[in-house]
Amino acid sequence: MPALPPSSVTIIGFGAFGALMANHLGALAPLSVYDSDPAARDRAKALGLRVLDDPAKITASVVVLAVPVQTLPACLAQIAPHLGRGQMVVDVCSIKEEPARLMREMLSPEVELLASHPMFGPASAQGGIAGQQIVLCPLRGTGWPRVAAALRRALGLKVIVTTPEDHDRQAALSQGLIHLLAQILPPAAKAPKIRTKSYELLSQALAMVSHDAPEVVEAITRRNPHMAGLRAHLLKALE
Amino acid sequence: MPALPPSSVTIIGFGAFGALMANHLGALAPLSVYDSDPAARDRAKALGLRVLDDPAKITASVVVLAVPVQTLPACLAQIAPHLGRGQMVVDVCSIKEEPARLMREMLSPEVELLASHPMFGPASAQGGIAGQQIVLCPLRGTGWPRVAAALRRALGLKVIVTTPEDHDRQAALSQGLIHLLAQILPPAAKAPKIRTKSYELLSQALAMVSHDAPEVVEAITRRNPHMAGLRAHLLKALE
Repeated sequence: MPALPPSSVTIIGFGAFGALMANHLGALAPLSVYDSDPAARDRAKALGLRVLDDPAKITASVVVLAVPVQTLPACLAQIAPHLGRGQMVVDVCSIKEEPARLMREMLSPEVELLASHPMFGPASAQGGIAGQQIVLCPLRGTGWPRVAAALRRALGLKVIVTTPEDHDRQAALSQGLIHLLAQILPPAAKAPKIRTKSYELLSQALAMVSHDAPEVVEAITRRNPHMAGLRAHLLKALE
Repeated sequence: MPALPPSSVTIIGFGAFGALMANHLGALAPLSVYDSDPAARDRAKALGLRVLDDPAKITASVVVLAVPVQTLPACLAQIAPHLGRGQMVVDVCSIKEEPARLMREMLSPEVELLASHPMFGPASAQGGIAGQQIVLCPLRGTGWPRVAAALRRALGLKVIVTTPEDHDRQAALSQGLIHLLAQILPPAAKAPKIRTKSYELLSQALAMVSHDAPEVVEAITRRNPHMAGLRAHLLKALE
């Protein structure tokens, strides 16, 4: 069972979000990084991080999966043979029902499972992450409250504990909606010369999601099962 | 032709926006207020303002119509017989094509006409109006640049000069859109527990328009002729 703070952390996937987490989790525990892409491993090495070159070397007590939900099955298949008792796997995908199902199906029953969604990203974390939210969905095992406590105390995050289904239902509104708006607004909506304060706020919100990776946008707007209901509601209300 | 600053101003209509303007225009010129509703006149008197009790007494060089577009025809019919050469009428409705047409049709050709839209209201003006936008659509006469200069220099407003058609086309996006969203979002969208920064910004934008008077909302979302195109675009994009 993971200690408080976790005795060691490995981040799998060194994309924009993996790099952001490496910045913050390094203060909590001895940290290492693994990415199946040698170029990503080189980027992590260049930052002075400890980099594993083989998934067989993942022995950390907490393994954080910072990979897009689209490649999660391949990632899980690669690391599953090397994980066992005493380890906890935490994903950070923007949706929770699909990753929760995949982790339950593909990882050994001896591995503890915690689905998570940090409600911030490289853009919104520029002023720091203290005070921001992270959603935790405990799936398997009893170690998660210690991780929750470390996130709360050492990183200052607001921890919300709920189910994957409740997360996805709420995230359709709090996250899916703004991405949906970014997709459906006419291009001219991005730069009218006449502005209001409310429009400035809406523009800032749209700008915040405009640099999200395409696979993140796809997960949020297409793979969240509750987005279909939101789309249907908007269509009906517009008609 | 109005002097700079205008030699005198009468505000017709003492609702929320009329009261806001009385606060600011009193610094520019001798100010009086008229409202066909005696209760509104009493509210203005209680604030120490000079109040006219008869539209026949409107002799100011600049007459500002702070009435909803829905009652603009009745207002114009009431004041038209008393206005003539040397006076300028300025409306402040949230849309511009309909008020421009009504003022042109219902007021004497000797009266100068300036359609305007201050891009702020009681909510967004709480921190002051300096730096905010006002749109001016000159309709008739040559005195409007002096009014524009006074708004710029004495109140610090950013003046945008354009046509009623261009205003309404842009306002459909910069103002109509957020009101449309407020109408079509599911009620649950107003309070998910899980939040993102972009959602906080969207919520603030929605809150800003949530206290607008029903007639203002109706004007912005239904009487702006360009809203139909925006609705059609959103419908198509959602499908």
